[in-house]
Amino acid sequence: MSKLVIVGTVAFDAIETPFGKTDKILGGAATYIGLAASQFNVDAAAVSVVGGDFPQEYLNLLSERNVDISGVEIVKEGKTFFWSGKYHNDMNTRDTLATELNVLADFQPVVPTNYRDAKIVMLGNLHPLVQLSVLEQMENKPELVILDTMNFWMDCALDDLLNVIKKVDVITINDEEARQLTGEYSLVVAARKIHDMGPKYVVIKKGEHGALLFHNDKVFYAPALPLEEVFDPTGAGDTFAGGFAGYLAKSDDVSFDNIKNAVIYGSTLASFCVEKFGTERMVNLKSNEVHQRLQQFKSLTQFDIELT
Amino acid sequence: MSKLVIVGTVAFDAIETPFGKTDKILGGAATYIGLAASQFNVDAAAVSVVGGDFPQEYLNLLSERNVDISGVEIVKEGKTFFWSGKYHNDMNTRDTLATELNVLADFQPVVPTNYRDAKIVMLGNLHPLVQLSVLEQMENKPELVILDTMNFWMDCALDDLLNVIKKVDVITINDEEARQLTGEYSLVVAARKIHDMGPKYVVIKKGEHGALLFHNDKVFYAPALPLEEVFDPTGAGDTFAGGFAGYLAKSDDVSFDNIKNAVIYGSTLASFCVEKFGTERMVNLKSNEVHQRLQQFKSLTQFDIELT
Repeated sequence: MSKLVIVGTVAFDAIETPFGKTDKILGGAATYIGLAASQFNVDAAAVSVVGGDFPQEYLNLLSERNVDISGVEIVKEGKTFFWSGKYHNDMNTRDTLATELNVLADFQPVVPTNYRDAKIVMLGNLHPLVQLSVLEQMENKPELVILDTMNFWMDCALDDLLNVIKKVDVITINDEEARQLTGEYSLVVAARKIHDMGPKYVVIKKGEHGALLFHNDKVFYAPALPLEEVFDPTGAGDTFAGGFAGYLAKSDDVSFDNIKNAVIYGSTLASFCVEKFGTERMVNLKSNEVHQRLQQFKSLTQFDIELT
Repeated sequence: MSKLVIVGTVAFDAIETPFGKTDKILGGAATYIGLAASQFNVDAAAVSVVGGDFPQEYLNLLSERNVDISGVEIVKEGKTFFWSGKYHNDMNTRDTLATELNVLADFQPVVPTNYRDAKIVMLGNLHPLVQLSVLEQMENKPELVILDTMNFWMDCALDDLLNVIKKVDVITINDEEARQLTGEYSLVVAARKIHDMGPKYVVIKKGEHGALLFHNDKVFYAPALPLEEVFDPTGAGDTFAGGFAGYLAKSDDVSFDNIKNAVIYGSTLASFCVEKFGTERMVNLKSNEVHQRLQQFKSLTQFDIELT
């Protein structure tokens, strides 16, 4: 078991999908990552910031699950980061209705001293300079640094982003973002170009079409579980990253074969996340449910053709 | 080994992709299906029609590969079916530039008498009444009837199509067509509705995102091999169907587990088809190349998580 450092937003979200609409509910990359990683009972710490308006009970959801929250700064006179979005009927695209940075605007992350020797670092989606600052606070080079990011930073902080990408081992990115980052339509060619930017492992998330893992000339394909209904896609990518990082922190093995398993665990957890609004499904998720769904992933993909 | 009857077009195609442009070249559903099925050295017969303008050497490509062509009618004074299309830059969408039915307009299929006892029937994309006529000529109920179709018939011959769908065991259809046929966005729900229309097995093809096989409450997901370049998607769906049907005819086993294997073989052969214009890659495909690519499919999807 390795220590895991998670950096990312802890936020309020207001979400509208064809199935309904929420008021301000718990959200944020670090929240989803932490909830997913906690399925593996790892020793994790979240690094983030919230305002004085943020309920303690939301933070308790993490601390009760063994996620240290001493690195979550509370700015008493500030307001918590707020995002609001509306999904289209196909659930694959969404409009952002509001983004209020609030306390995130001046966020200076501080990694708790007893986590500066963590072997696994999960850099959730945030300004690349914040991600970089976390890396610089680590005592030794971590065994595995995983980066999640989005197109927004490609548009407005590309140089900083490239600077972080150079320093990480794994990048998780969606298909459109991989195309934007490289200017290549073919995901195989895009992954190769991203390899050349630094990361040894490139994970391209394709939403309902699953995820691809690239490592040198090797490729692995984890499907998404075909679901009857996707209720709310919010947090699915973060949950994937949290399952991925949590599994690797628990198993202490960063070989390619085990990273394939981490992709399967990430996909498995993400398949739960979308079943309810916000974090609801993840907060109530039981380990026997995860076990059962892993079985489904196995029968979904395993076949038996004898090759001599 | 079971006899296999294939019905479908044998045609001229003219194709334009971002990579180039062809004159009239060999095309047609039965051509692609026959070439793919011939990889399994099965005893197959093609049922189709061509005009007097059709080169004998094209028909020989099938007969040399053990595909009986006595059921391919040659209308000396007629012209062969011609299709022309142009693919957009993303290669997932295309415009049809020309469709000249020619001899296809009055086609009355005749299954050669010595193939009327075939156990496997592959109904390639054609007017549903032609597909139905082939079924009616079979002496006994075949062990497995596989249907491929397209949105065109949903638009202009829906009742006839539903009538054929009722009588088949397997349907292969793409994701958009499954949605159109059922009015359901979720492929899981769409597959269930198509089940209710007749077919025990529903294969939904998702192009570069692979294929899903549904059977009662079971699901299997075959990814598409991530390719550096898709050169020409023409015939990929037919090649999938031909590999699927050819493998089942060879292995004489229509259990769910073996139908999963058939999906993998179909995907494997389709991954070659798109590498060159038209039938070029399929005509030159060697069995050791197929074997090697099956290995790639295995390492692409197989993982090793122990579940107790």
